Amino acid sequence: MALAREWTGMPTDAERACFEAGIKFGSLYHQFAGTPISPASADSLATAMEEAIENQPYCESVTVGIRMGELADAIEAGSADYTELTGAFLDVELTIAYEGTTVIARMEMEDGYPLMRLDEVR
Amino acid sequence: MALAREWTGMPTDAERACFEAGIKFGSLYHQFAGTPISPASADSLATAMEEAIENQPYCESVTVGIRMGELADAIEAGSADYTELTGAFLDVELTIAYEGTTVIARMEMEDGYPLMRLDEVR
Amino acid sequence: MALAREWTGMPTDAERACFEAGIKFGSLYHQFAGTPISPASADSLATAMEEAIENQPYCESVTVGIRMGELADAIEAGSADYTELTGAFLDVELTIAYEGTTVIARMEMEDGYPLMRLDEVR
Amino acid sequence: MALAREWTGMPTDAERACFEAGIKFGSLYHQFAGTPISPASADSLATAMEEAIENQPYCESVTVGIRMGELADAIEAGSADYTELTGAFLDVELTIAYEGTTVIARMEMEDGYPLMRLDEVR
Repeated sequence: MALAREWTGMPTDAERACFEAGIKFGSLYHQFAGTPISPASADSLATAMEEAIENQPYCESVTVGIRMGELADAIEAGSADYTELTGAFLDVELTIAYEGTTVIARMEMEDGYPLMRLDEVR
Repeated sequence: MALAREWTGMPTDAERACFEAGIKFGSLYHQFAGTPISPASADSLATAMEEAIENQPYCESVTVGIRMGELADAIEAGSADYTELTGAFLDVELTIAYEGTTVIARMEMEDGYPLMRLDEVR
Repeated sequence: MALAREWTGMPTDAERACFEAGIKFGSLYHQFAGTPISPASADSLATAMEEAIENQPYCESVTVGIRMGELADAIEAGSADYTELTGAFLDVELTIAYEGTTVIARMEMEDGYPLMRLDEVR
Repeated sequence: MALAREWTGMPTDAERACFEAGIKFGSLYHQFAGTPISPASADSLATAMEEAIENQPYCESVTVGIRMGELADAIEAGSADYTELTGAFLDVELTIAYEGTTVIARMEMEDGYPLMRLDEVR
């Protein structure tokens, strides 16, 4: 007989799937934040981010969108013709599949802060 | 009346806590991997990693240990007197507190791969 | 007899010293940009940055100052109690010694862009 | 009349060009080291690295080659089907143009250490 969760503290498969989703977001953000980016180089960076993180375990898919309007505005406000990647330019969605659980998570700006959130756990 | 989880896919607080734990590990690893490190600079890097990640939301504590034996071996095997931080030199433990759930997670080497795992969810 | 420089294109020791100075700045900036930072964690991060980059070849010293006023302002402007390291919070000075040449280089904000510049080559 | 260099320590244009070349190498390496990479994702990462660094000032061109044999060997030696980007998998060449000086610099493995070196200054 399995011991009750409150005694063991052992994570469920769904909790492990959510942990894996978090790892992917932290990895994606802190690996690529600071990368020099311009409208011309945005596509290749987004593709590389998707394919790099999709290498990680249990990662079914990653979609990275670059907010081209915000990017153009940030470059116009500065003195160079490029800027550095921050969460302000990113919309990310990822799907994790772990032992029968599917997790969908998103990163979007909220109040000027790049919020990572769990959307669905099924 | 709340709809059943299988209909909504809405994450539980425990699942959100595990997601937050994952974010911290991915952040810590991909922010600092590649940093030049030697026995003399190991302590200041470990402290900076702990304090940086403890800034993140819901992060109660982070403990970073550097495997000084592995570090010395790696430097001896190379031609320089320092090397770059990888998971091979790290033991990390972190505690997340989210809406009444506490999560303890660890990163340790397993078969030459820096495995991040959930230890307890309470 | 040595061939004239215009024929060989071979770098001088002073040019190699300047190349090394550039490597250190690029390393420092792109390794640590994006790190979560708050007034409480600023000191440990600055120390870790100095000691990490001082590991690199020919690097005599690195001094990292955090602009605490700009940091406090940026945190106040956001919705979290920390922010991410960018050049806006950094004053860096480094000294390179290469085969008898000493180079002093600095990074400071200029028109909102973190300018890295050579100060002296002796 | 210009003061002699030994009095002023003022850098020459060629020295500034070499400093810029160093910045690009340090940026490229420490931005992307640690990125999850597999044979399938190597091309998109190489392209993103080239286009990102070409955004930086005075950078005429960047060519990033991934050593596919070393990459396959490293993955085979581990327990996962991907690994992390290090200098062991990289051949990089870049061209800087600064005020009439052209600098060509390369990064290649030498004795197990990713050596960055100035090739030509003209």
